Amino acid sequence: MAKVNPHFLDIKREYIFPVIERKLEELKKERPDVEIINLGIGDVALPLVPSIVRAICDAVQEMGQQKTLRGYGPSEGYLFLKRAIAENEYSHLGIAPEEIFISDGINTDIVNILDLFEEDNTIGITDPTYPVYLDASIMSGRGKKLISLPCLLENGFTPRPPKEACDLIFLCSPQNPTGVALTHDQLKQWVDYAKKHQAILLYDNAYVAFVTSPSVPKSIYEIEGAKEVAIEFRSFSKTAGFTGLRCAYTVLPKSLTALMGEKKISLHPLWSKRQNTKSNGVSYPIQKGAEAAFSPEGVRETRAQIDTYLTQATTLRKGLEKLGHRCWGGVDAPYIWWETPNGLTSWEFFDLLLKQCHLISVPGSGFGKCGEGYVRLSAFTMAEKAQEALRRIEKL
Amino acid sequence: MAKVNPHFLDIKREYIFPVIERKLEELKKERPDVEIINLGIGDVALPLVPSIVRAICDAVQEMGQQKTLRGYGPSEGYLFLKRAIAENEYSHLGIAPEEIFISDGINTDIVNILDLFEEDNTIGITDPTYPVYLDASIMSGRGKKLISLPCLLENGFTPRPPKEACDLIFLCSPQNPTGVALTHDQLKQWVDYAKKHQAILLYDNAYVAFVTSPSVPKSIYEIEGAKEVAIEFRSFSKTAGFTGLRCAYTVLPKSLTALMGEKKISLHPLWSKRQNTKSNGVSYPIQKGAEAAFSPEGVRETRAQIDTYLTQATTLRKGLEKLGHRCWGGVDAPYIWWETPNGLTSWEFFDLLLKQCHLISVPGSGFGKCGEGYVRLSAFTMAEKAQEALRRIEKL
Repeated sequence: MAKVNPHFLDIKREYIFPVIERKLEELKKERPDVEIINLGIGDVALPLVPSIVRAICDAVQEMGQQKTLRGYGPSEGYLFLKRAIAENEYSHLGIAPEEIFISDGINTDIVNILDLFEEDNTIGITDPTYPVYLDASIMSGRGKKLISLPCLLENGFTPRPPKEACDLIFLCSPQNPTGVALTHDQLKQWVDYAKKHQAILLYDNAYVAFVTSPSVPKSIYEIEGAKEVAIEFRSFSKTAGFTGLRCAYTVLPKSLTALMGEKKISLHPLWSKRQNTKSNGVSYPIQKGAEAAFSPEGVRETRAQIDTYLTQATTLRKGLEKLGHRCWGGVDAPYIWWETPNGLTSWEFFDLLLKQCHLISVPGSGFGKCGEGYVRLSAFTMAEKAQEALRRIEKL
Repeated sequence: MAKVNPHFLDIKREYIFPVIERKLEELKKERPDVEIINLGIGDVALPLVPSIVRAICDAVQEMGQQKTLRGYGPSEGYLFLKRAIAENEYSHLGIAPEEIFISDGINTDIVNILDLFEEDNTIGITDPTYPVYLDASIMSGRGKKLISLPCLLENGFTPRPPKEACDLIFLCSPQNPTGVALTHDQLKQWVDYAKKHQAILLYDNAYVAFVTSPSVPKSIYEIEGAKEVAIEFRSFSKTAGFTGLRCAYTVLPKSLTALMGEKKISLHPLWSKRQNTKSNGVSYPIQKGAEAAFSPEGVRETRAQIDTYLTQATTLRKGLEKLGHRCWGGVDAPYIWWETPNGLTSWEFFDLLLKQCHLISVPGSGFGKCGEGYVRLSAFTMAEKAQEALRRIEKL
């Protein structure tokens, strides 16, 4: 008799996006005349840049010709893309192309990586957190092995190593949802902690392109010793507008080990085995598109988009502060973490913003208990919308 | 201390493709003058058809315009593609678009589906088998829960329901590697068996486009009651030349249930939850390409390619028989299952074919113990190569 994995029913978290969607639909029905500004979802607002469009079309044309057709690609990704990433992103850090695995999204890899570890390993997860880490950990039967890492006003919304030993730690920096990034010193504390406890850091670096503070490292491998304890996950989603195209990569250094019985063994061949068994890799034209993001034209075009989003982040952050609000993030990330005024709950303030300002935010409580009392604003929007949002907020 | 999932080291299977690759490289060095014919890997030999190339380019252009850009798509796939599949492939079988989940490959979904089930469920796997079912089952800790379903000459290379109860059964029909397909009556035995034991059939239907025998169903849902016990996996890889593009789909009827304690619960919302948590869906342009495979032009163009491969399958099968060899498959599938002559082992015959005929096959023993004494030939090739292969085999 086929029996269901009981852990699927352990997920109790409030699922916020359908609720937001419903409230939005209600408003649209009630007030079809108003223009709604969506600073909710963290998705691109600008079109795919021309150099990437061209590269993908060229690759598809190639596949349409007998002489240049391509079938199955390597499950771990094409060497041309792995090389481009190694040269452009990691040359100063000594990461080799074969330590880079191409995937269809950080989301996929960062939860699949749990396959490599024993079920009884403890997992550190920040609160608030990108919800997927939590749900995937619970689904895989680790719901009772979780250690919460609070990110509160008191600690500058940055997770600090706990007293107890965690075996695996999900770290997202610059962080979704708070928009706050770990500095070099803070990240070093985590690397030291991981070494001490023989733990592994699962470092979600999706927002690296938004980092502007000199104190914030662009890769965890800038920290000495990190290659022995950290896996870094990066994506083309937010750096090159690939949310709808799907391409990302995982850096798993060959020096990274974990325990098998008494022995330390390398994780690199295990992940390679997993990917070769459970995946057929990423679409060839999409990988060619990702490669084009590293061409001089691609860099110029995608950089301009990132700068646009960062400008909107600055507009929103400074605008809110000028109006007497308290907020964080928006310097090294496209997210603003906004404290609700007058002690309102996240949902109460969400409702107020929706009804009074016709503005969509995301209630912080949807990212965890410690997110209560905040909402997240996304800077993936156009300048005129960010300014209009502030004008409406001013009238609150 | 991070500990490795010990089941990763339980995989003992001979990993054949790197060995084949090595032998091929050796031959190329020894005899750079000879033209090698590759009937090994089951990959496309014809380019992507024009209507699909056009649809993908158009979609990428769309993403490059402010008015038509697209970010994150639905994790379960775009409705336009789910509708096209439901209308074109399942309208007579009453499968609704929301029962169809788009993915980047059968390979991904058919092993991820194990996430939904308790670890102690037993799993039936044919021998020989597409190796991924086996490896993924072992990796997920089910290595001691496997029940072998032999496919031998005595049973026409078709797996029969065993006496004992299996909870989950991987069925691939038309089968890789034997090229033999289950008839309606044989499949009905499996559906009846699954009902009796409250088991679930994981039906890999990757080669449906090659089915020509009237007795072979094109979908498992042609069997009465299958919607209560079967998940069907299909792909654009072999039907529309998508091996390098990555698009497939999983049909999970809402009426499909499994046990949670004493209660039967629907699997549909669980798979939906899994996909929404652990995936961000398939690239938009690739889904548009898949949709184009259902346009009148797309159907005509892709059908012509399938017919080409089927012609080569017939050439190879009839040619081998004329030369006094015994072989199976090649009628409803692009694979020929060829009995080694003179009691040679699979590898001995592979070596002979490579050295004497400069022909690459796949040793049947690489697909399981019961594959010993056979090699697999792929019909994904051009007419002149199939004919040349036969000329060389004749001289053996």
